[in-house]
This record gives sequence, C-alpha cells and structure tokens, in this order.
Amino acid sequence: MPSNHGVVYLGPGKVEVKSIDYPKLANPKGKPIEHGVILKVVSTNICGSDQHMVRGRTTAPKGLVLGHEITGEIVEKGKDVEFLNVGDLVTVPFNVACGRCRTCREQQTGVCLNVNEGRAGGAYGYVDMGGWVGGQAEYVMVPYADFNLIRFPDKAQAMEKILDLTMLSDILPTGFHGAVMAGVGVGSTVYVAGAGPVGLAAAASAHVLGAAVVMVGDMNKERLAHAKSVGFEPIDLTKSDKLEELIAAVVGVPEVDASVDAVGFEARGHGAQHSTEAPATVLNSLMAVTRAAGAIGIPGLYVTEDPGSKDEAAQHGNLRMRFGLGWAKSHRFYTGQTPVLRYNRQLMQAILHGRLPIAKVVNATVISLDEAPRGYHEFDTGVARKFVIDPNGMLKKKAA
Amino acid sequence: MPSNHGVVYLGPGKVEVKSIDYPKLANPKGKPIEHGVILKVVSTNICGSDQHMVRGRTTAPKGLVLGHEITGEIVEKGKDVEFLNVGDLVTVPFNVACGRCRTCREQQTGVCLNVNEGRAGGAYGYVDMGGWVGGQAEYVMVPYADFNLIRFPDKAQAMEKILDLTMLSDILPTGFHGAVMAGVGVGSTVYVAGAGPVGLAAAASAHVLGAAVVMVGDMNKERLAHAKSVGFEPIDLTKSDKLEELIAAVVGVPEVDASVDAVGFEARGHGAQHSTEAPATVLNSLMAVTRAAGAIGIPGLYVTEDPGSKDEAAQHGNLRMRFGLGWAKSHRFYTGQTPVLRYNRQLMQAILHGRLPIAKVVNATVISLDEAPRGYHEFDTGVARKFVIDPNGMLKKKAA
Amino acid sequence: MPSNHGVVYLGPGKVEVKSIDYPKLANPKGKPIEHGVILKVVSTNICGSDQHMVRGRTTAPKGLVLGHEITGEIVEKGKDVEFLNVGDLVTVPFNVACGRCRTCREQQTGVCLNVNEGRAGGAYGYVDMGGWVGGQAEYVMVPYADFNLIRFPDKAQAMEKILDLTMLSDILPTGFHGAVMAGVGVGSTVYVAGAGPVGLAAAASAHVLGAAVVMVGDMNKERLAHAKSVGFEPIDLTKSDKLEELIAAVVGVPEVDASVDAVGFEARGHGAQHSTEAPATVLNSLMAVTRAAGAIGIPGLYVTEDPGSKDEAAQHGNLRMRFGLGWAKSHRFYTGQTPVLRYNRQLMQAILHGRLPIAKVVNATVISLDEAPRGYHEFDTGVARKFVIDPNGMLKKKAA
Amino acid sequence: MPSNHGVVYLGPGKVEVKSIDYPKLANPKGKPIEHGVILKVVSTNICGSDQHMVRGRTTAPKGLVLGHEITGEIVEKGKDVEFLNVGDLVTVPFNVACGRCRTCREQQTGVCLNVNEGRAGGAYGYVDMGGWVGGQAEYVMVPYADFNLIRFPDKAQAMEKILDLTMLSDILPTGFHGAVMAGVGVGSTVYVAGAGPVGLAAAASAHVLGAAVVMVGDMNKERLAHAKSVGFEPIDLTKSDKLEELIAAVVGVPEVDASVDAVGFEARGHGAQHSTEAPATVLNSLMAVTRAAGAIGIPGLYVTEDPGSKDEAAQHGNLRMRFGLGWAKSHRFYTGQTPVLRYNRQLMQAILHGRLPIAKVVNATVISLDEAPRGYHEFDTGVARKFVIDPNGMLKKKAA
Repeated sequence: MPSNHGVVYLGPGKVEVKSIDYPKLANPKGKPIEHGVILKVVSTNICGSDQHMVRGRTTAPKGLVLGHEITGEIVEKGKDVEFLNVGDLVTVPFNVACGRCRTCREQQTGVCLNVNEGRAGGAYGYVDMGGWVGGQAEYVMVPYADFNLIRFPDKAQAMEKILDLTMLSDILPTGFHGAVMAGVGVGSTVYVAGAGPVGLAAAASAHVLGAAVVMVGDMNKERLAHAKSVGFEPIDLTKSDKLEELIAAVVGVPEVDASVDAVGFEARGHGAQHSTEAPATVLNSLMAVTRAAGAIGIPGLYVTEDPGSKDEAAQHGNLRMRFGLGWAKSHRFYTGQTPVLRYNRQLMQAILHGRLPIAKVVNATVISLDEAPRGYHEFDTGVARKFVIDPNGMLKKKAA
Repeated sequence: MPSNHGVVYLGPGKVEVKSIDYPKLANPKGKPIEHGVILKVVSTNICGSDQHMVRGRTTAPKGLVLGHEITGEIVEKGKDVEFLNVGDLVTVPFNVACGRCRTCREQQTGVCLNVNEGRAGGAYGYVDMGGWVGGQAEYVMVPYADFNLIRFPDKAQAMEKILDLTMLSDILPTGFHGAVMAGVGVGSTVYVAGAGPVGLAAAASAHVLGAAVVMVGDMNKERLAHAKSVGFEPIDLTKSDKLEELIAAVVGVPEVDASVDAVGFEARGHGAQHSTEAPATVLNSLMAVTRAAGAIGIPGLYVTEDPGSKDEAAQHGNLRMRFGLGWAKSHRFYTGQTPVLRYNRQLMQAILHGRLPIAKVVNATVISLDEAPRGYHEFDTGVARKFVIDPNGMLKKKAA
Repeated sequence: MPSNHGVVYLGPGKVEVKSIDYPKLANPKGKPIEHGVILKVVSTNICGSDQHMVRGRTTAPKGLVLGHEITGEIVEKGKDVEFLNVGDLVTVPFNVACGRCRTCREQQTGVCLNVNEGRAGGAYGYVDMGGWVGGQAEYVMVPYADFNLIRFPDKAQAMEKILDLTMLSDILPTGFHGAVMAGVGVGSTVYVAGAGPVGLAAAASAHVLGAAVVMVGDMNKERLAHAKSVGFEPIDLTKSDKLEELIAAVVGVPEVDASVDAVGFEARGHGAQHSTEAPATVLNSLMAVTRAAGAIGIPGLYVTEDPGSKDEAAQHGNLRMRFGLGWAKSHRFYTGQTPVLRYNRQLMQAILHGRLPIAKVVNATVISLDEAPRGYHEFDTGVARKFVIDPNGMLKKKAA
Repeated sequence: MPSNHGVVYLGPGKVEVKSIDYPKLANPKGKPIEHGVILKVVSTNICGSDQHMVRGRTTAPKGLVLGHEITGEIVEKGKDVEFLNVGDLVTVPFNVACGRCRTCREQQTGVCLNVNEGRAGGAYGYVDMGGWVGGQAEYVMVPYADFNLIRFPDKAQAMEKILDLTMLSDILPTGFHGAVMAGVGVGSTVYVAGAGPVGLAAAASAHVLGAAVVMVGDMNKERLAHAKSVGFEPIDLTKSDKLEELIAAVVGVPEVDASVDAVGFEARGHGAQHSTEAPATVLNSLMAVTRAAGAIGIPGLYVTEDPGSKDEAAQHGNLRMRFGLGWAKSHRFYTGQTPVLRYNRQLMQAILHGRLPIAKVVNATVISLDEAPRGYHEFDTGVARKFVIDPNGMLKKKAA
C-alpha cells in the first residue's frame, strides 16, 4: 500500500501538507463498500469555498483533509463497479451522490439523501457534508463510482486538455448551472457578479450558451483586467453605487436578460460601501438590474450559519433581501449546490471539441502538492488565478 | 349614455359607492384607443390585495375606483376588436396587458411593458399599476380586448356557473400559478400558507393538479374550519411555532414536496409571536418545510415600499429572509403577479366540466354594489367568505 | 432453496405453468452480481404486450419465462444493496435499468444502455430485451435493486391497496407517460385510442392530471361499456369512419387538446375497415383529431420487425403514416417504452392517498398461478379485465 | 400612391416580375384593418419552399405574388398601431399571426387560428396559407403589426448587418427551431440533413447553441464544399447507403445526440438510390442515427397533399416511415412551421453582437428585383447561395 499525503486544515488561516491514511473502500463510518474506487489523483483544484473554511468562517474541525475538485486514475475498484476499470481516467463531481435515492434519480445530485446524516447533500473534504475525505492528496476514495464518475473516452487526448478537464469537477458545471438557471440563451445579455473562478466559469458558460453580451462585475482590478483579456465586459464596481448605470454604459439599457450571483454570502458593498460586508448586496443589486420576468441563478454559496459574520442576523443565515423588488418584477431565484452530473458529460464534450477554453478563462496555474499552502494564501489575496494541484507530478511530467 | 356607479377609495378604512364617469374607449391619458371594449359588469370580486390599499398600507390616492376582478358583457367595442362582439360574456384577467410587447408575447402578462409608465405590469383599479379605472362598478373599459379577454363559449351555461367563473379573473389563476410554480403534480404533498381566498384557490388548484395531500395553514379558526369542510387538511398555526411538527402530524414526515405562500408581506408570526407583524415569517417557514430540491410558489404580494410597516427595513421592501436555509436545500423561488392569461382558458374548461368547484371552496357570497363597503369591512375581519359584487343585479336575477 | 414455478411460453398460442430454476444473484450471462435482490412475488400481471409474444407475432424463443409486471417481497439481497432490506415490499418497474449510464442518469430508464447487448432498453421476461427472467413466477431476481425498486412505506397499508399498487409496475406509469407526453393538463380535452388496460390507465391518468373531458375509443363493446362505467366518455369506433365526428358529438368541436395511442402496431381499421389490420390507422386518426400545436403520446408498442404482419412494409416496422397532416398541424410525437421510475413514486403516493382507483378502472381480477394460461386466453378474447396473478397465494390470504 | 412591382408565379417553372397593386390596409377579403402597416421592402429572400410552388408541386394559382421572407421600412400605419412608427426598420416573420388567438398567445404563431380560413397558420405569398400577398415586391402590407414586427433598435447599425438580419424572417429561426426541438445544447453532436440554406441555418444554430460537432449531409458537392468552408463537417451521402458509417467516421460512434431534417418531402434516396424520390428516406435515416432518448427536429416541409409525387401514397401525404425503429429508441419527433416570433428577437441580438454570421454561412447573394426569375432558376439548380432580392435598390445603395 502506497503512502499518501494531503492538504490538511489546522485552524483559521492554517493549512499544511501532511501524511494521511491511504484510502479504504469504506464509508465515513468505516463500513466496507463494494461500489467505490480508489483514485490516484491527477489534478485537484483549490476552490473559493475551501477558503470559507480556511478563513475560519465555518465550524470545520482541525485535521480535515481538504479538496473536492478531483480528477484521477482508477487504481482499485470494488466488486460492484461494473462499468469502470483500473486505469480509467475519470472526472469526479464534487457532490457525493448515491445514485439510488429520490433526488439522485431526478438528477438533483447536489442534495442526495443518503450520503450525509446531517442534511441533504454530500461533498469531499468539506465541513458538514458527510465526512468524506478530501482529494487534495495523492489518493482518494470515491463511492458509488459507476454512478458518480465520467470516464474520459481517450486518455491521451484527455491529458492534452487536462487543465480544462480538471474544471469539470466543480467550477465549470457550477458556473454553467448558474447561467442555465438564470435562463441564459442565444442572444441574452448577461451580468455575472464576481470575477473569481466561478464567475469566470459562469461567463464562459454564458458565452458557449450563445449570449450576446457577457458582463462581469468585481471590485478587484486584477481580476477585472483578466476578465477583459479573455473576452468579457468588465464592470468595475468601485466606480458607482448604481449597477444599473454601469450596465447601461455597456448595453444601452439599465438591465440585463439574466444574472448570476457568483459571490455568495461573503459579499461586500459596492461603491462607497465596499469595505463593509453586506451579505445581501449582490442579490439586491441583481434584482435591480434583471429584467422583469427574468431569473437569477445563485451558485454563490449562502450558509445556514455564519458564526464569523459581523452582522448578527447573518450569523443565522438571515439576509436583508429587498425581496419586494424581485416580486414586483416577477423574478425567479434558483439556489443550491450544482448537480455536477447533470452537466459534466456535455461540458466534457464541449472541451474535447475545442468549444470551451476554460483553463485559459480562469487562468489555470499548476502547483505541486507542497505548494498548496502557498496557493491557498495567494488565492486568498485575490489573484486572478485558479490553482491546480499536481499531487503525483503527472501534469508536470506531461508538460515536460 | 347610461349612468355609472363604482366603489371608491376615500382614505384609510373608507370606501363608498359613488357616481363615476361612464367609461370611454381611451387610455388613462385620455388618448382614444381602437382596441378596447366597454363592459357591463356581471360580477366583480373584492380581493385581499384591495384590502392593502383600503387599510392605508399603500400610497393609493383618494378617489381611486377599486376593482380588478371583473366578468362582464360587451356593450361597445372599438374598431380594431375583430374576434369579440357586443353581447359576448367574457372574463377579464386582472392584469392589463398589451399583447404586443416582449413579455406579453412570452405570456408573461403580469409584467407587460406597455401599460404602465412607472414599472412593468398593469392592473385595473390599483395603485401604481398604470391608472386603469377599476371595475367594482356598473361599467368598465378593457383595453386590448381581443388579446385580454376570454369569451365563454355558451352564455346560458356560463351564467349557471357564474360564481365559479368569476374567480377566473384573479384568485383561481393566482392560486393555480402558485401551485404550478411550486411544482405541484400528481401525488405531491402540498402546504399552502394562508386560508384566505387565494390560499383556498391554491389548495383547490393543488387538488385538481393531482396532489395526494393538501394542507392549509392559518391562525384564523373560522377559515381553518371552512378549509376543512371543503376537503383540505387544516394546520392551526396557533398550536406550535414549529410548522415542521404540525406537518409531520399529518403526513408522517416534517416536510412537503411543494409549498405556496398565499399570505405575502402582511404576514404575522406563528405560535407565540402571532400578534406581531413578521414579513418574512411565511417565507422562512416554507424553507423549513419544503423538501430539498423543492420549489416555493409565492403568489402572496410583496411590495417595494411599505410605508405603513412598523419594521423599518420592511418599509423599503427589505425582509430578513433565512436565505441560507433555502440555499442549502437547493430551493427555487417563484414570485410575481400571476399572468392570468396563461391559465384562465384551461381553468374555465375545468370549471365548465365540473372539475373545479371553486365558488364552494372559497365560499362565494353575492352582495349588491351598495353592500360593497360592508363587504370590505367584513372581509377585513377575516370571515371565511369571498365577496362577489353584483353591480347590475344580473346574479340576483339569475338566482331568482 | 425453495422450488419455483413460472409461466412459460411454449410456442404460438401456448403457455404453461412449469417448474423453473430458483433465481440466482447473477446476470443473464451467469456473472454474479452484488446489486440484486430475490423477490417472493406478491402479484404479477398479464400485459397486452405479453400477448404479442404469445400470439406468435415476435421471435420469442420457446421456454421463455414470461412476466414483467411484478410486485414482491425481498427475501435475499446482494452485498451492495444498501437501502433496502429483506422483508421490504417493493414495486418493480418493468424496465431493467442500471442506474449508472447516461440515459438512466437522465431518468430515461426505458433505454438503459447497459442491460441489453442487442439494443437500448431491457425488461423482464421479454423477447429481445436482454434475457432477464420473467416474473410470472413464485420468485424472481431484480438487479440494481437500490436504483430500480421503490419500497412501500407501510406494508400493511400497501397490502390493503395491493390491487392498485400492482399496476405501478407497468400499465399505470405507461398510461400516465402517454398522457403527460400528450400534454394533458388541467382543463384538457383528451382522446385515448384503445380501451384495454393501458388505454384505461391513460384515461385515469388524464383524469388525475385534471383533464376536463376524457374520451376512450375502441371497437369492443364490452370494453367500451366498462370504460363508461368508470367515468370516461366511450367512443364506439364501429359507428363511423370519421373519428372527428364522433368526438364533435361529445365536445362540440372535432378536435381534442391531447391524444394518446394506447393501441400500437396491431391496430385494426375503423368503421367499415375494422376487420383488416392497418398498423398506422390509429396514428393517422390521432393526427386528424389533435389540435394544431398539440402533441400525441404513443405508449402503444410499435416494433422494428413484425414477421407476422400481412402488410409487407409493416414486417419491417414501416408504416404508411399521414405525416404531412401532422406536420401541417405542428404536431409533436412522443414514442417509446415508459421510464417507469420517472413516475411510480408519485403515482404510489396518489394511490395511497385515494386519488387513483386504478384497480377498479382496469377491473383487476385476481387469478392463481395455475390459472395463468386461462387468463392469457381470456384476455386475448378482449374481456374488460386486467388479470393479476397471485403466485404465492398472498392476495388470496389477504382477501380471506 | 407609388407604383409597385412583384415576383409573380405564372405556372410550373415560370415566374416574372410584373406590375402589381400597391398594398392597402385591408385583409385578403378586402376588409379594412386598423392594425396593419405598409412596408417599403428593404430585402426579401427566395426560399426553398417557394421552389415547391414554382416546380408545380402544389396547387398554387397562377398570378400569385411570391415572397414570405421580408425586411422593410414602415411607410404607413393603421390607427391601432401603437408601438411602431413610420420610418422604423423591421423584420417580418413569415408567419402571419393575429396575436390574439389561443395558439398565438402560447407563442405558437406558426398555427394561428385567425388568419387562414382553410387551416391553422398563415404566410405571405404562399398557396393555401390565407391569401396574404407576397413580399418579393417593392411594397407589402403586414397585418397585426405591433404583434408581428420586431423593430431594429438602431437603423444605421442594422443596415450594416442587413444581409444577416434579412435571414431573421424565416431560415435562421427555422433552422434554429429545428436545432432547439432536436435538443441541441452545449456539447451535442449534431447531424443536419440537407446543406441548403435551411440546413446551413440549422447548423449555424447548432453551433451558437454550443454543439461540439455539427455535421451536414447532402449529395450536392458544391453545397458540401461550401458547408465545409464555413466550419461544418460535410457528410457526402453519395459515398454510402449507411449514414451510420459516415457519421462514425467523423465522431467515432455511429450515432448523434440530435438530428435535424432540413430536407422535407422532396427527399431523394441516399447512395445507390439517389436518383429516385423517397419521401421518408431522410426521416428513416435520422431514426437510424439518433441516439436512444434523442429527438428529431423536422423543419423540412411535409405536405398534406403532393399531387406531383410519383409515389401514390405520398400524393396524399402518406410516408412509409420506419416508425417502429424510432419507437424502439424512444424518439421524439417535432414538426411544423417555425413560430418565428419565439426566436427572432434573441437571434437579432446574437447577430447584432457578432455571434451569428449567418449571411456568410448561407452565402447571401444580392440580386435586383428584375434578376429574381434568374435567381429562382439558379437556386433550383442547387447552387450554394441564398438569394436576397433588393427591390428598392437600398442594399445596392448601402454597398456603394
């Protein structure tokens, strides 16, 4: 049995690479399972939602192995894995899903009813998501493998596009879900709040869905400059309190067909208020700019408890939403973890055929496992990068 | 030209029947129109949303002629009315809609872009909805008649069911929209917040959509007793703060497949908090009881400004929503004025073929025009009735 | 290991109850599987599609154990069955589905890609459907049990309604799928071609979906009389060649909102042509009577090869469709095996809460396993019954 | 009143430009209308469906003014045209639609119930489509203008892209409808039957919808070469009878996710059979190559009567469809005239923002009104061009 190392959360602001157990074909309670596989991790990305934990905004326990964006090669499989084999290169949805419950059958894999005793929905390496060990490691176990995994049809071809394909585990489907829920289609004008990786993935998704104009708003100059460099209209939120005006300056009218919240509960105010946390500010601004009868896709994370918030109501997941405005405009609001499996096969096809250069759009940057703590730190400063960890040196080797 | 009388708002708590102008084929600015008809009103109902104005919770101007739930007979038509004739008996959607703009073409007639200068969406006899004169009167003008009106195929047959058909102008489609948006289908378990007429209409809609169990919650004993008498499971909110528990007592689990908010912004707290206004309390309780991946239909009115609220945030349409909870459950939220025209033809068919005894469900109670002020008063006390005004004595005559 | 007996096809017109192997947890090739269960069969119905085989219209091999409509109790389970237990009472969809392929993930379980080497889609006891042993027997094996099976929440309650619940394995979802695909909704006028069990199930489905009027057409007087007795409008196709006229006599117009073909490829002509097979006659008549922009649901079976047909084109699955007529009316056509799992949970809820008295609608008639051959014979004569086999005497015991 | 000239059908194979009446604001029966406008035609295209008439395959009467693909400038308007003005540049959907009937309200404008006494659905300059005068002319009348017309927001900008925008009246929405109905989405593999203008428009639509691979099949070498030059994978149907094999050669598997029939009833056989008419051959081949659970979009025209066909069944719109094959694969079939208004606004946005270079894709070729007869002739020979008539010299002037 090989050794294993992973990125471990050790308390607010502190992550380290440590030796961890080699995975077993067993569930978080230790019960053996026949449906799992063990993966040698080919790539695993640092996610903005990992930052929520690392910043100490959650109740994540010390010792948690992080990582829910995983691509890997099967090195071992259980007896009831029928349609995958050792050696297959696969993409892992960040949602752990059983494929056997009511919601999984309806392809609502973000709220599987069987993989988390505390609530609906599971994930790898995440607080309150069922206790599944994270994949920012050399090896990781994936349960219900036949259901959860998508095999890349051609391994060599896949390794050529691996920096794009690694985004299939979370941010690309998450951005895509946001765009689809917002009703983006051919000819849409779209506003995406947030120029981080999920926002850029939503913007790239809007583009491939045929949007006419894709705007991305942020207060981070570097991220805005990057968004512009990959083809989106940057909206600099430090310039005005009135998002309507900033949008009108681009499309001639103060509204868009569809909007996406790729920020979530750690939002800050716009314009003059930009240094204060204002958890409902993004949602409220999207109601202001989305057309009547339009929809708002909300892949950005909102939490049930936010003990680290300065806003007392927000500590219990309460937001001061200007809901009356949305109601007056007949808005629809779509929330929740993305059911990755609903989208990843088709997005894989789009990548393999050159329609979605997502690695370039999010500025994928490869680092070694040892560099992961530095990656966390840099990402937290707001660099315009998406860090891809290469725990087994397989990306480096390919590049060489 | 006949005389005309209507129900006029004269200030908080005050409505009177007064002589008003006979309608002209002209828009609210006085511009002549070719697409309108003048109706002799056969029936026109008092609506809960009229109460918001009469209670002084809005900026409705004194002198406003009330009434947006209208059924009538055409007595005059403009030159560009091609498919309707004098003598036709028609149902009028409460939404004024042009049938020619982007949203109307998409059957989003609740947010027509052409009939209200202030915002999207128009209505008869309502503050901030475009200035169209209300229909709690002997005569009323309806614009864009070919588009807006549905003709009853057989006048005599329709007069037999007129107390059911009169609900097509608003509350039946509104309740139905709530149920449809909430995803109610065959076999659903459903919770409807509010046992007023819209809540009962939502419950009746859930039933005809095939729901397995339909629960209706309220704090008003009379309304609960009526809800039970017409076949729904009453949920007495004075009994517990925990809606989950009340629901589990009926269906065995603390959740439902679908839920509908038929209360809106004037909500009060449950259980011990029931005497205080708590504008987000219904929404928050629906997030608590709706299943993961479920949807919440929100036909209950939320306003952009509520000067009469005691809650300062609520005065500007801000609610303290526990949005993080909904997000964790991947909820979808559907808001807005119902686009009546999307549903009323099919609901009419259901009524005419005996599938939807809505008059009985909402306890339709006919009153004369002169009795309208008393009807407003009684309705405001929470009686389990839906008042139907008979301005021209045509219902009385039929009954005789 | 208990003995086992089942209904075996022995050649055109010939079925017998014979001793058969007790099931193993293995696939049709004999490979052991961890995901299967063995059921003691509580009820198993004779289906019209079984008749196609028994009449010799297919290439079904002698020795085939028949039966794909199965309800049973788990007596043994594989190692990878996590969410079901021995003793559970379950309904079995007639589709064998893996729950792990692209189409199963999209809830298109009628065309699973992994359970049949010859083509997409598997079934129990059916020619060319993957070789899975049929369930008109005392015991049967069900693979991918966690995915395929729905457990009845309360066993005693379920046994009270078992004659309704036994229809969940095929004909109720099949009729429901037809109605849903045809666009049946609240207020629809509906025409169902065929008053056999699937047609009646489609009619009952249309009713619970809120249809205003449900008509059922056939040439069999007994079936028409039964359809009428359970609340549908009978359409006697022997009365006229013009279906439009028969429909107009009921609803006043020569068209319906939605139509369902519950007949399939063994259709016969209407009116004067009624003794000749005319495989496209039902489809052509549905195009004639379905409204412009309407849809046609086609749960009735059409085959790729029909060696027994007298029409040479039809022997290769070719029909003379009047497709130009459908095109002129912008019709949509929905075909294929019903994905039972998409509907059966909700239909179960509707049955358990008294909304769908399907046993009465299809005239469920219990027979013993030994009576199965006689049941096949009687059903083939066109009696207005649905035969439910009671292979272990559990229905009889309950009734006693 | 200016003079007017138009393209007139004078019998099989014969069209001429002749002096015709200047349009009146009146319907085909001569009744004055308030809702119409008169357009000075800016561009009007020759369509493949015009060819059906000109080839003598229909019952089109001599003297018919042709042309249903129209873009123009308003020169006069009726009293009930409220939201358009003289001088506006507008695109005209080929469907004449009232905007007031049940199907128009549902945005099924291809089967309007009020504009054609003979059947549902109207069009300009087309046999059996309501008698509305065609627009291959200097001036044309458009009824229900507020509903039917989309105004280009900026006239100068629109004239810059006029060769793209002229395709909004028919072929671009028609191709798009085919692709949407076929279920084309991000990552789809798509096969389009027919490399004429509608086929190319379907292919361009599939591309902007995010398709991974778009194949276009034909037997015309010039059209295939053009299809390749604008980015699609050409499939040369003269090379094999087995479309599956030709497709597998491109995508590695013998099937596609979605397919579109852009040929219609005048189809010819593939491979060895290519010189014979075989009206169902395209549909049958699409069933062979479309994946299980896939859909087939059928914008290609199928007629109710085809007196010119050599196939007797086809003369009455009967096709020998291999429907059993589609049924076995759970195919869905979508037919009918495209409801242009459902798509043209968004497609206009896509064009104006540079996402859909449709003029280049279909090889738009401008000709004068006098050259129209030659355009008809050349188009009939199968050139890889889409002819755009410039009846008032406005395109020439702009180009100059």
